[in-house]
Amino acid sequence: MSEKKRRGGAAAAGTASSSKKPRVSSAASYAESLRSKLRPDASILTSLRALASAAASSSKSKAALKYPADQDPSVDPASSYIVVADQDTTSVTSRINRLVLFAARSILSGRGFSFAVPSRAASNQIYLPDLDRIVLVRRESARPFANVATARKATVTARVLSLVHAVLRRGIHVTKRDLFYTDVKLFGDQSQSDAVLDDVSCMLGCTRSSLHVVASEKGVVVGRLIFADDGDRIDCTRMGVGGKAIPPNIDRVSGIESDALFILLVEKDAAFMRLAEDRFYNRFPCIILTAKGQPDVATRLFLRRLKVELKLPVLALVDSDPYGLKILSVYMCGSKNMSYDSANLTTPDIKWLGVRPSDLDKYRVPEQCRLPMTDHDIKVGKELLEEDFVKQNEGWVKELETMLRTRQKAEIQALSSFGFQYLTEVYLPLKLQQQDWI
Amino acid sequence: MSEKKRRGGAAAAGTASSSKKPRVSSAASYAESLRSKLRPDASILTSLRALASAAASSSKSKAALKYPADQDPSVDPASSYIVVADQDTTSVTSRINRLVLFAARSILSGRGFSFAVPSRAASNQIYLPDLDRIVLVRRESARPFANVATARKATVTARVLSLVHAVLRRGIHVTKRDLFYTDVKLFGDQSQSDAVLDDVSCMLGCTRSSLHVVASEKGVVVGRLIFADDGDRIDCTRMGVGGKAIPPNIDRVSGIESDALFILLVEKDAAFMRLAEDRFYNRFPCIILTAKGQPDVATRLFLRRLKVELKLPVLALVDSDPYGLKILSVYMCGSKNMSYDSANLTTPDIKWLGVRPSDLDKYRVPEQCRLPMTDHDIKVGKELLEEDFVKQNEGWVKELETMLRTRQKAEIQALSSFGFQYLTEVYLPLKLQQQDWI
Repeated sequence: MSEKKRRGGAAAAGTASSSKKPRVSSAASYAESLRSKLRPDASILTSLRALASAAASSSKSKAALKYPADQDPSVDPASSYIVVADQDTTSVTSRINRLVLFAARSILSGRGFSFAVPSRAASNQIYLPDLDRIVLVRRESARPFANVATARKATVTARVLSLVHAVLRRGIHVTKRDLFYTDVKLFGDQSQSDAVLDDVSCMLGCTRSSLHVVASEKGVVVGRLIFADDGDRIDCTRMGVGGKAIPPNIDRVSGIESDALFILLVEKDAAFMRLAEDRFYNRFPCIILTAKGQPDVATRLFLRRLKVELKLPVLALVDSDPYGLKILSVYMCGSKNMSYDSANLTTPDIKWLGVRPSDLDKYRVPEQCRLPMTDHDIKVGKELLEEDFVKQNEGWVKELETMLRTRQKAEIQALSSFGFQYLTEVYLPLKLQQQDWI
Repeated sequence: MSEKKRRGGAAAAGTASSSKKPRVSSAASYAESLRSKLRPDASILTSLRALASAAASSSKSKAALKYPADQDPSVDPASSYIVVADQDTTSVTSRINRLVLFAARSILSGRGFSFAVPSRAASNQIYLPDLDRIVLVRRESARPFANVATARKATVTARVLSLVHAVLRRGIHVTKRDLFYTDVKLFGDQSQSDAVLDDVSCMLGCTRSSLHVVASEKGVVVGRLIFADDGDRIDCTRMGVGGKAIPPNIDRVSGIESDALFILLVEKDAAFMRLAEDRFYNRFPCIILTAKGQPDVATRLFLRRLKVELKLPVLALVDSDPYGLKILSVYMCGSKNMSYDSANLTTPDIKWLGVRPSDLDKYRVPEQCRLPMTDHDIKVGKELLEEDFVKQNEGWVKELETMLRTRQKAEIQALSSFGFQYLTEVYLPLKLQQQDWI
């Protein structure tokens, strides 16, 4: 109420708009009027509960959601795709031992040694509609030591295998940069050790996190989630407004528990902060996480773990621009250069909650809070329209077409024009009530 | 021991170096030999305890470390520098009320209204050796509404004051981006609302965090620290390897407790991860924090709070390059564009623990793990030599001169060439034992 008054007063103090564009004051009062459309929270919660249990039961029948270790396609040499899986230390170590034994026997028999390395060329990275993600086609090439063209790379491969073995034996985790620095002379520059690390991951059929080589993390999580990080019990309802940093090493995460009804995936930390400060998860039980922009590997692994173990629907709150959708695509289908690990990094079936291009008119976001799309934005938008993962969702195609037709984009923050807490008090509750996601 | 063997084996398998540069194997064995120089932890701890209590008693006498609110120079109009201070909501609100009442009275008396705005021009930002930080010289200019040149800016100022007032009344925190979006039409672009927000901060003599406008956070903390984040008790020894995200709103942090002997400030998250995974803080009680590169406002505020309340020595672990030193300078002296807030953002008396240019030879970091400085690196290094904050520390000048003479730089990660855990097992303990900081 006081917010309403404040905004009214502010609009009166401001300059009046004479254009045909919606005026700030009328847009604000319309936006405020949506508050009255809100049903009591209990009623919204009932439908969310139904949704959550539907998600739990449907996921049981979806192969794509099964933990890869269940089926372990990586040990199936007949499979036409390379799919790496999480493996425990013992399993990875014995796979390395097997490779090295094989090489040793080959040397003893006078044939020298060679590694069979899967090709990760772009032409081998394809999107599979059935699996709804990018995968790597199995096509191996030999990397013999006794060949001038490949001797160096075979040596690097052997060295990376030995380093990974040492890391696993010590039970620690290292970064790619650490790995590079252990033998700068051999590796030359980091792109070489990084590339061979990916090769090794494919060769062993293990995820990079199984190799205990981790990426730096930038994600944070807050809300109705309890888990153990390296044995420490973390209650994410008691992580203040700053939240808990998502751990870089997913294999140290265990004991995931939650009474949440959904996972809210947020593109940016500003919106995350609003949700955390307002303790949105106490009104609508949920887990809120963000990678603060472009998703990093640790956040993607963490989201997938949550989805797989808790079987909750995932709703995404991103900017209404082509990059918002691109971020969704990375979470859902993976990025091309890690296609071999897409099974572990991707979370299928994320719903696009908002901010969607159609929301701009629906919520009467004032014209001046919308931004014109640049030529580059339009180019990216058009490219997205050609992507399989967009095409298979009719709703998304329509939204993207709306965006490209109006040539307008908007950030989540644009909702602040209706009041700083409009996002948590009106927009999201109404979205949840209307189950307005696609 | 097994690590030693592994490295020896690896070196044997590698190519032998014939140059005059230290060979990897000999450097590695020398590095390993340093392990034997380590005294028992109890002995190192005794000296650290002496250091911590010395820091606690010396800081009592240092004005620079007093909480600015103690003296509140911001309400002293006779002061020749503008120093903003943390103020509680009631105080900020009444300051805004006073400004607005003054304006109202001025209008009623027929004189219109005008704001007296401190000038934040670069020429007003100077480094004070006594205070050891950059401050803003008090020089105010009038911003009258009844003047074509300033009418718009006066309106923007009034609007920002009213928005801040509303945020404070609601008891919430918002980002600069939120603020901008509440009136895009008036502000035009975000740089304008941001600039006026800084003006308002200076006018009111309050820090930006007192205005409840927060920056997004990217820092993490782990170790011997307990604090409350928005009322939630956080025990940073139980935050796994991921650590606790440093909260964006420092005023929600309270109840800081610690049995640490020092604060370890780390430049990068790779080193942070190593320290967190090895639970270094259990061996040497400390608080470990990082801003993951260039320090953000939230991390700087948090570090200062820790230093002020716990009176612990702060030791910094940064890359041995000009940017490592530049990062130290931002923590210690502030950045120029926030000079008016330097008292709250800066932490004086940070010791440069490592990796220092002299460490490269001292620890015999292999040549191939050092990188040649680029022309730009050298330019930045030479500029640093001219900075007052470097000049006043003879040790730093010498180190920087060494860096520029050898034209070599190295990352913290370069220590991984002696083993992944060399940093936590040998390098840092030896540094602490030898009190090797400047």
